[in-house]
Amino acid sequence: MVQNGQITLYSSPYSPFTHRVRIALDQAKADYTEYVIDFANKPSWYAEKINPIGKVPAITYGGPKSAPENPPPESAKINESLVILELLADLFPEANLLPSDPVLRAQARLFINAFETKAFDGFKDFFFMYVKGSDKSLLESLEALQARLPPTGFAVGPEWSNADSAVAPFLVRMDLMLRHDVGRYPQEEGAAILEALRGAKFARLAKYIDDIMKSPVFKTTWDEEINLKLIKLNPATQRK
Amino acid sequence: MVQNGQITLYSSPYSPFTHRVRIALDQAKADYTEYVIDFANKPSWYAEKINPIGKVPAITYGGPKSAPENPPPESAKINESLVILELLADLFPEANLLPSDPVLRAQARLFINAFETKAFDGFKDFFFMYVKGSDKSLLESLEALQARLPPTGFAVGPEWSNADSAVAPFLVRMDLMLRHDVGRYPQEEGAAILEALRGAKFARLAKYIDDIMKSPVFKTTWDEEINLKLIKLNPATQRK
Repeated sequence: MVQNGQITLYSSPYSPFTHRVRIALDQAKADYTEYVIDFANKPSWYAEKINPIGKVPAITYGGPKSAPENPPPESAKINESLVILELLADLFPEANLLPSDPVLRAQARLFINAFETKAFDGFKDFFFMYVKGSDKSLLESLEALQARLPPTGFAVGPEWSNADSAVAPFLVRMDLMLRHDVGRYPQEEGAAILEALRGAKFARLAKYIDDIMKSPVFKTTWDEEINLKLIKLNPATQRK
Repeated sequence: MVQNGQITLYSSPYSPFTHRVRIALDQAKADYTEYVIDFANKPSWYAEKINPIGKVPAITYGGPKSAPENPPPESAKINESLVILELLADLFPEANLLPSDPVLRAQARLFINAFETKAFDGFKDFFFMYVKGSDKSLLESLEALQARLPPTGFAVGPEWSNADSAVAPFLVRMDLMLRHDVGRYPQEEGAAILEALRGAKFARLAKYIDDIMKSPVFKTTWDEEINLKLIKLNPATQRK
């Protein structure tokens, strides 16, 4: 199976969900076009022609290269970042977005599941909503995620996989926001979490985040300075 | 890739999540052993050796056939029903648990995602918790699920796939519980939902549920009479 037609990624510069897909597309060395959706002035064709839910990321896949507002009629329209990651693994098997061993593939999916079902809520509730008690649930979920990491390397071994693409955009933003005291959480809770994450208990997770930031496939998709500016501008990160 | 070692399924007769895996194992014609976990008297080895979370389903895969309480040390221990379905698709490619076409595979995963992120909560909230307003959200989520069905056949075409294995155990139990007025919902709300599901608006979903119940791969895993008894005995279905 090889890429058989154009790929267009509909994106937002803010979105960690889009970031997941951008990493996987880069890892796959896919030939793709990126089109940034302006959510302040969302084009009506986006929900009509690409993603009825109106969110990003979404991709179109198949047919000849076309203007982003006029996708080829024969192209598939796929939303949901994790479904897109699986699709890219299927389309580009030689890029090893997932390991070839079925058990390692299952472990990659369990790692993503551990993030999705627990850590994501902790992340959202602490940084963007501030729900009381979310500092504890965030740390617990990060401990559970850490417990799934092998002693060294990435989520399921020495090679980067979709498991890392799925989780890295959130862990790196979490680290950045804590270091710069950005987010809706009370300042002292942020300081306490940062201290915990710098301590012995979270040494493995800290090394993992460090490895992510040094990884070539991640670095090419991440500009810390620009992301910090975007995050600070996001109304959802403003303290009340 | 072929099955390379034993498979043991740890199950519960109640569980629609276990049911998902049993269907897929049968479709794959896998050679497997099933071990029913007695949740009234849960064996301590289960959390220690198989699934730290203590829930079902879980499988062990690999190594020689062994007593369920002594899985082969080299076997992989995999929980989460949807991760197990993906693993089985990887282990038994010739069984077509997922289509071979990457776009159809993505559509199967989007169908499962539509169920997981919306309809499952509606199902739980209406039948087992009874949250006020859950009748509306259940119907809305079923309408969204129905919208993803092709004009005829199963979730992604004429052949049964993991998308059907993931959703069928819930849709069939929903239908059964409504027909027999079982569950925590107020009786009149159940009658209204049953009437809606029998109406023109839900004709496609009703046909899908009917096709599921007639499908050989489903029929071999389902005994309506026994399931109705089990569901009636479940404390979570008792009206307050």
